[in-house]
Amino acid sequence: MPRYPLPRERAAMLATVLHGPGDVRFEDVAEPKILKPTDAIIKLSATCVCGSDLWPYRGASPITSPQHMGHEYCGVVVEVGSAVRHIKAGQFVVGSFATSDNTCPHCQHGFQSSCDQREFMSGAQAPYARVPLADGTLVALDGIPDDDLLPSLLAVSDVLGTGWFAADAARVQAGSTVAVVGDGAVGLMGILAAKQMGAGRIIAMSRHKSRQDLALEYGATDIVTERGDDGVARIKQLTTNVGADAVLECVGTNESMHQAINAARPGGSIGFVGVPHGVELNGEFLFFSQKNLLGGPAPVRRFLPHLIDLVLTRKINPGKVFDLELPLADVAEGYRAMDERRAIKTLLRV
Amino acid sequence: MPRYPLPRERAAMLATVLHGPGDVRFEDVAEPKILKPTDAIIKLSATCVCGSDLWPYRGASPITSPQHMGHEYCGVVVEVGSAVRHIKAGQFVVGSFATSDNTCPHCQHGFQSSCDQREFMSGAQAPYARVPLADGTLVALDGIPDDDLLPSLLAVSDVLGTGWFAADAARVQAGSTVAVVGDGAVGLMGILAAKQMGAGRIIAMSRHKSRQDLALEYGATDIVTERGDDGVARIKQLTTNVGADAVLECVGTNESMHQAINAARPGGSIGFVGVPHGVELNGEFLFFSQKNLLGGPAPVRRFLPHLIDLVLTRKINPGKVFDLELPLADVAEGYRAMDERRAIKTLLRV
Repeated sequence: MPRYPLPRERAAMLATVLHGPGDVRFEDVAEPKILKPTDAIIKLSATCVCGSDLWPYRGASPITSPQHMGHEYCGVVVEVGSAVRHIKAGQFVVGSFATSDNTCPHCQHGFQSSCDQREFMSGAQAPYARVPLADGTLVALDGIPDDDLLPSLLAVSDVLGTGWFAADAARVQAGSTVAVVGDGAVGLMGILAAKQMGAGRIIAMSRHKSRQDLALEYGATDIVTERGDDGVARIKQLTTNVGADAVLECVGTNESMHQAINAARPGGSIGFVGVPHGVELNGEFLFFSQKNLLGGPAPVRRFLPHLIDLVLTRKINPGKVFDLELPLADVAEGYRAMDERRAIKTLLRV
Repeated sequence: MPRYPLPRERAAMLATVLHGPGDVRFEDVAEPKILKPTDAIIKLSATCVCGSDLWPYRGASPITSPQHMGHEYCGVVVEVGSAVRHIKAGQFVVGSFATSDNTCPHCQHGFQSSCDQREFMSGAQAPYARVPLADGTLVALDGIPDDDLLPSLLAVSDVLGTGWFAADAARVQAGSTVAVVGDGAVGLMGILAAKQMGAGRIIAMSRHKSRQDLALEYGATDIVTERGDDGVARIKQLTTNVGADAVLECVGTNESMHQAINAARPGGSIGFVGVPHGVELNGEFLFFSQKNLLGGPAPVRRFLPHLIDLVLTRKINPGKVFDLELPLADVAEGYRAMDERRAIKTLLRV
């Protein structure tokens, strides 16, 4: 059970810091404090490593100073700032990796990840974390959930919320033919989301047995192992030369983005959630493709209540995407396993 | 009144041929003939010069051989091929610049401009034109319309259909705040379309008095004269720093496209119909913009029945966009006037 309020004498804690490519350290850092009256401090129940953490880990994003890693979280509130009205110490909460006031016009339109006051969470691969804009960012559960639901509740915070947004942005509907580019954790969650939205057919693009198996378990109806133009040709072949109604782009490379666009039918939609690295789209190509594009950091906050409900009622089991579980102290191994594709996604027990 | 069938002795006609940048000639060409059993030949009632005709006219698109110009048309059917079932000689018809069978999966999804059998019309700045896939491409009216409706019926064929698609692709709804980038004929038709769809506010970006006046007449509520970043800043200012719900991009340059994307709010939509020239979009920019994009050659066929009805019942007057009317023989002057922005759009009487 959590102790709260946070004992004031604990001034340091061990947490995850990325010092350079491949250099993840579990080391002493200052414990988080309330910095603004709208903040909350939570004690993490579990945390994890994100596919997007691998970009800086692999040196694909520059690291100019040590980075406090981690933006996926669920746990118990131990302290709130003076302006926090709804979130209370002792509550079990799930939040989004993008903080939001949930009241500005962008939030009201359901795009909380573009909130006027948005910050991106960091420092959540740690025992404690500061969550800005607590009232707008966090959703509190009634009571403390069963321990076996923790992985799934943690997944809601980003990987499921992001896969869900990919399917929502790609306008998956009942009966849709869906293609999913990327067999990482987000792609697998996109399959789960498409299935929940009633997709008639879900084509997973994957060439790894363990991921194919999980894809099928989450609702994929077809597996395509080809990539690039060959992958597109295979999807055309599977859809009587029409293309998919909806494509979920869950990688972020220039090749995967073009593959996703080319796999959709004219008038079809691409939801792209892989953080783009080196993606350039030519205007004429987009024009004559005639396809809907929407992507970006997922507005997970929009989906949180629904997704939490699906987890608590055990209708979905997104937590199964964690195929490696380690104590937080072994976080460096968690990164390595994902980098080397030995693990789909690493859960860290706090 | 039309003569039909087309007298066989007429083997040549005077029509519009573009020989090189700025070199429009009205000269003898072979009269169109039925080439495929699904073709129809129509006698044009009126035709016109398109903004997109100015790209090759200005040398911005290469001209490798003389081009028979013109893709906007309405008129009377004089002959049909042996496989044409529904369209009959003697009918007054309106068609799209993109031909379609109106039966393939893309057509059934409402994206007839990506029809499996699509061809782009050409040679319609002429007394007679061949229309491929007549049954799928053409919509026949009951009887011959009043002469004063000809400009509006001609507008339906492309410029209105394209402006309408821009508004449709940008998901304009009742109450939407809409911004229109481009004050050419398509932009003005986009304003008309947004108004018909119930937009609450329509911001026209224009710095030309005559176009501003027509924009206001078609339903614009605000005029913004600034361009680029200044134009975006002004739209933000007009929308309490939120951005527009829907933006219609009706130019096709890299600057106008970025202006359109930046003028929309997160979660807002851009319908882009200006044929892109030099447009390049960075993946990271699109990702963090978090906006819907859909564009391309307009599937005018989808909208034809509704738009023809709006014209015949005199609910809209898109024909007013033609502010210069010339006999077909003066087509070269029609191009010049548009190129020099002395005219918004030139109607050519056949």
